[in-house]
Amino acid sequence: MSSASRRIVIVGGVAGGASAAARARRCSEGAEIILLERDGDVSFANCGMPYFIGGEIADRAKLVVASAQLLRTRFRIDVRERSEAVAIDRVARTVKVRRLVDGTEYELSWDRLILSPGAAAIVPPLPGVHAEGVYSLRNLLDMDRIRAAVDAAPVGARRAIVAGAGFIGLEMAEQLVRRGFAVQLVELQPQVLPPFDADLAVAIQEELVRNGVQVWLGRGLQAVCEQGGRVQGVTLSDGTALPADLVILGIGVRPNVGLAVACGLELGPAGGIRVNEFLQTSDPLIYAAGDAVEYPWGPSGGTARVALAGPANRAGRLAGQHAVSGVSAALRPVQGTSIVRVFGQTAAMTGLSVRAARRAGIACRSATVIAGQHAGYFPGASMLTLKLVYESGTGRLLGAQATGADGVDKRIDVLATVLSFGGSVRDVAGLDLCYAPPFGSARDPLHQGAFVACNELDGLGAMLDVDADLAGWQVVDVRTAAEVSRAPLTAGTPVIAIPLDELRDRLGELDSQKPTVVSCGVGVRAHAAQRILLQNGFREVLNLTGGATLRRRVVPPESVVPAGDVR
Amino acid sequence: MSSASRRIVIVGGVAGGASAAARARRCSEGAEIILLERDGDVSFANCGMPYFIGGEIADRAKLVVASAQLLRTRFRIDVRERSEAVAIDRVARTVKVRRLVDGTEYELSWDRLILSPGAAAIVPPLPGVHAEGVYSLRNLLDMDRIRAAVDAAPVGARRAIVAGAGFIGLEMAEQLVRRGFAVQLVELQPQVLPPFDADLAVAIQEELVRNGVQVWLGRGLQAVCEQGGRVQGVTLSDGTALPADLVILGIGVRPNVGLAVACGLELGPAGGIRVNEFLQTSDPLIYAAGDAVEYPWGPSGGTARVALAGPANRAGRLAGQHAVSGVSAALRPVQGTSIVRVFGQTAAMTGLSVRAARRAGIACRSATVIAGQHAGYFPGASMLTLKLVYESGTGRLLGAQATGADGVDKRIDVLATVLSFGGSVRDVAGLDLCYAPPFGSARDPLHQGAFVACNELDGLGAMLDVDADLAGWQVVDVRTAAEVSRAPLTAGTPVIAIPLDELRDRLGELDSQKPTVVSCGVGVRAHAAQRILLQNGFREVLNLTGGATLRRRVVPPESVVPAGDVR
Repeated sequence: MSSASRRIVIVGGVAGGASAAARARRCSEGAEIILLERDGDVSFANCGMPYFIGGEIADRAKLVVASAQLLRTRFRIDVRERSEAVAIDRVARTVKVRRLVDGTEYELSWDRLILSPGAAAIVPPLPGVHAEGVYSLRNLLDMDRIRAAVDAAPVGARRAIVAGAGFIGLEMAEQLVRRGFAVQLVELQPQVLPPFDADLAVAIQEELVRNGVQVWLGRGLQAVCEQGGRVQGVTLSDGTALPADLVILGIGVRPNVGLAVACGLELGPAGGIRVNEFLQTSDPLIYAAGDAVEYPWGPSGGTARVALAGPANRAGRLAGQHAVSGVSAALRPVQGTSIVRVFGQTAAMTGLSVRAARRAGIACRSATVIAGQHAGYFPGASMLTLKLVYESGTGRLLGAQATGADGVDKRIDVLATVLSFGGSVRDVAGLDLCYAPPFGSARDPLHQGAFVACNELDGLGAMLDVDADLAGWQVVDVRTAAEVSRAPLTAGTPVIAIPLDELRDRLGELDSQKPTVVSCGVGVRAHAAQRILLQNGFREVLNLTGGATLRRRVVPPESVVPAGDVR
Repeated sequence: MSSASRRIVIVGGVAGGASAAARARRCSEGAEIILLERDGDVSFANCGMPYFIGGEIADRAKLVVASAQLLRTRFRIDVRERSEAVAIDRVARTVKVRRLVDGTEYELSWDRLILSPGAAAIVPPLPGVHAEGVYSLRNLLDMDRIRAAVDAAPVGARRAIVAGAGFIGLEMAEQLVRRGFAVQLVELQPQVLPPFDADLAVAIQEELVRNGVQVWLGRGLQAVCEQGGRVQGVTLSDGTALPADLVILGIGVRPNVGLAVACGLELGPAGGIRVNEFLQTSDPLIYAAGDAVEYPWGPSGGTARVALAGPANRAGRLAGQHAVSGVSAALRPVQGTSIVRVFGQTAAMTGLSVRAARRAGIACRSATVIAGQHAGYFPGASMLTLKLVYESGTGRLLGAQATGADGVDKRIDVLATVLSFGGSVRDVAGLDLCYAPPFGSARDPLHQGAFVACNELDGLGAMLDVDADLAGWQVVDVRTAAEVSRAPLTAGTPVIAIPLDELRDRLGELDSQKPTVVSCGVGVRAHAAQRILLQNGFREVLNLTGGATLRRRVVPPESVVPAGDVR
């Protein structure tokens, strides 16, 4: 059989399938390409759905990336909507297809099969979870239902619960506020944005609270209360009852692997379909791409499920080419690079968090800086918080996280690029980046973060974690008296305040034999203080990561409310 | 001698000197550090000066990065302003210092010397060039003079000539327009932004014209006309006379190497001070950093002068550490990454342009895409033009350029990072980057550019340069009829218009034996057309880079004015 006459059957258009179809056609005019899609929409911008519900995207038609019509006329794809693949026969090389309009079934033979079944929203088995007014958001049907409910909600009945403070949950919370809803965000973990380290996630929690979202952490949904089949509210795992007119479930997705499992394809350790670098499953004639597979995982080797559009798009494209021609580039390892806008703040990450690195058994350190996204002397400067996670000893970059109003995407994209080359914080320190006042600084936050890490690696400045217990330390705050009184470092621990510029003359006020931690606004002056003390006979001097700015964000000194009760 | 008691003398605060001083102090409390500065300002944000003249930066004090006072109290640097180093004795290890206030001189001994003399504006030896009203912009004195002249200019006398369309020239042109000046920009090269390839620079030229700047290309200043010592206008090399109340010279800088040459230090091939990766000159006790040195040059090896703040800052920091302690990281090769905002557009580049690569004898190809900086379905999307330059055959990235309203800095920073690892366009194609609708696309412009390059490397889609002569080609425009009539591809050459979706059915209208070039809006549909034709027996099919959008920008079909006369 020449490759020109191959029949390629693709199961599922979204999450890689349409990319596979388009690329397959470009590589082979002669191939027969059939695309089976359960729903009515073959390829749509699912990342845009929250913004259509919120009205930020006004035109629904714009969400359709590639219509069935376009795939037919331009790419000569045989698109079959409302057609579900229900069984695969790997020996006969057939797939059984059910027409959802009438339930009839037929067999379809294939030379190569590409599975792009995606993932389904997890709907927890709770009382009342199927009541009217409780929604997940995975496809345009979901979106239309939620949009209609939002449009129809009278002014007095705009109370929403969003369960899950991951990307979808945060986007929905933001967009529902935009639509005039009072939003309560519920998250089982003790922080928002569970993939992030808590010290970075807290800025996003603050931004939610600042915009009127009530945040309930460390609690899950226990039940949905309904009346006459309509949602009335929810009960949380700690017994709290919250009234609600609308509930959005954003607690995660489950890969649609049923079809693959039924025909004996292997799964990976994370429960996704196992594929090689050419997206071939354990049956080399069957490919898979998108949210149902496990991709090669860059930061720590192995594989991981990454339900994001970028990898799905690239994987689909490669699978389409390889299926039709037998050759393609290899899929590069995925770094889990992701980003979310939450009102005026952005949070993004790539690779491993400190928590994930430790879970993977990798000894790591981190360096966090708070610095302007562009030159401080140029209008519009705002602060971003950037955390580099690197391997102890070697400095190999493991991951990064950032939050801020502007410039977050750029820094994380650069660090994702460093990760892809297996680079280190020393490589980051040497990067030659764009600088003009509207765009950055001669010493970019990326450089500053890398300098902190390199100083630690070189024994020039060890850091103390921002949330460390300060009891027992000699704590020296080197800010000015005005700064200290305006924003004290901590409420509980005694702090010796000596402004940096007076430190050399006031060393006698400190005990050089006591383990000492120095702090300032963000850590820059404290580094200078640290260097002075270390060269004046002090035994152990650590610099508090992120200074008072980060400390007060992570361990609020005035707080009387436990973190879980932030509202 | 222990390193703690070393005396470090630093010549020049700006362009690396102040960074060197601060880092030296952090690495050694005991060292004696003396900073000699000819001017009154030790460290200022020279990149911000155009914006203070234009009023975009309101507070002059913000431009002072590190005051002499701060360096004295915080870093215990012995700062000596208005002190010029006039001679170095390498055997005696002394430097002769002249006090500029009274002309007296003294000898100063050193253990390590760090030269940061910077560069001076080139003032061409033209008649009248020293008239009142003719300025260069290198330091705060220059800035204050220009700002005063601008403030004082009456409404009827706000005509400015800016000579040189490089970064400073463009920033000054923009800021003078902001101040109500009629600006004429004169550039000897046939394009603005001479380091860029012409096909990218033209978008910036358009933006200048759109904002009322008159652009005179391919011409230099021949004379400055003065009356009573005041500028009245200029004459260009083609005889054109332009009246002017203000002339800004932005035609380049010359490294201040006099002191280094006089004491026998070696220069590099580009006329800058030769240094090794620790910033040591040919005398290992003397270091140099900043605009007067030649840095290791990443894109093609060797060394290059790069008068930019980022490298100066990093080099100064390393020189300070190495001078005081004998150890530091090595300076990473510089990529020439640079950026400029011009009204609503940004232009940035890194590494080699096609022109520079060819000059360096490197066989190269380029891939240019025009794509949205974020998802097209999300509000605020704007187009950016991205050009990747890569080595023929291997695909090794050599450089990149981009223009657009938004997101230019991010893409160039990512590519500068790829360059720093010696990466290829295949690496770019596999990058895992941030994507959410406000920030990018599942298929980022970076991916799209890399896909074009990889397709060419893999024989799946050869490209034709945007400015190629189309005579003799069978030119096929696959846009819709409405698009073609709204914006024809070319005025001179016959074009066969067949919309892509009809192409497969109308192959008979084309001659498969003729060398064929296909084009569309930006090149995406043309790639599909190219694939169709190549698989239907067409002998040679090239895709016109950037489609009609770029072609019309670079070779305007309606133009009756030669490019040099754009006003």
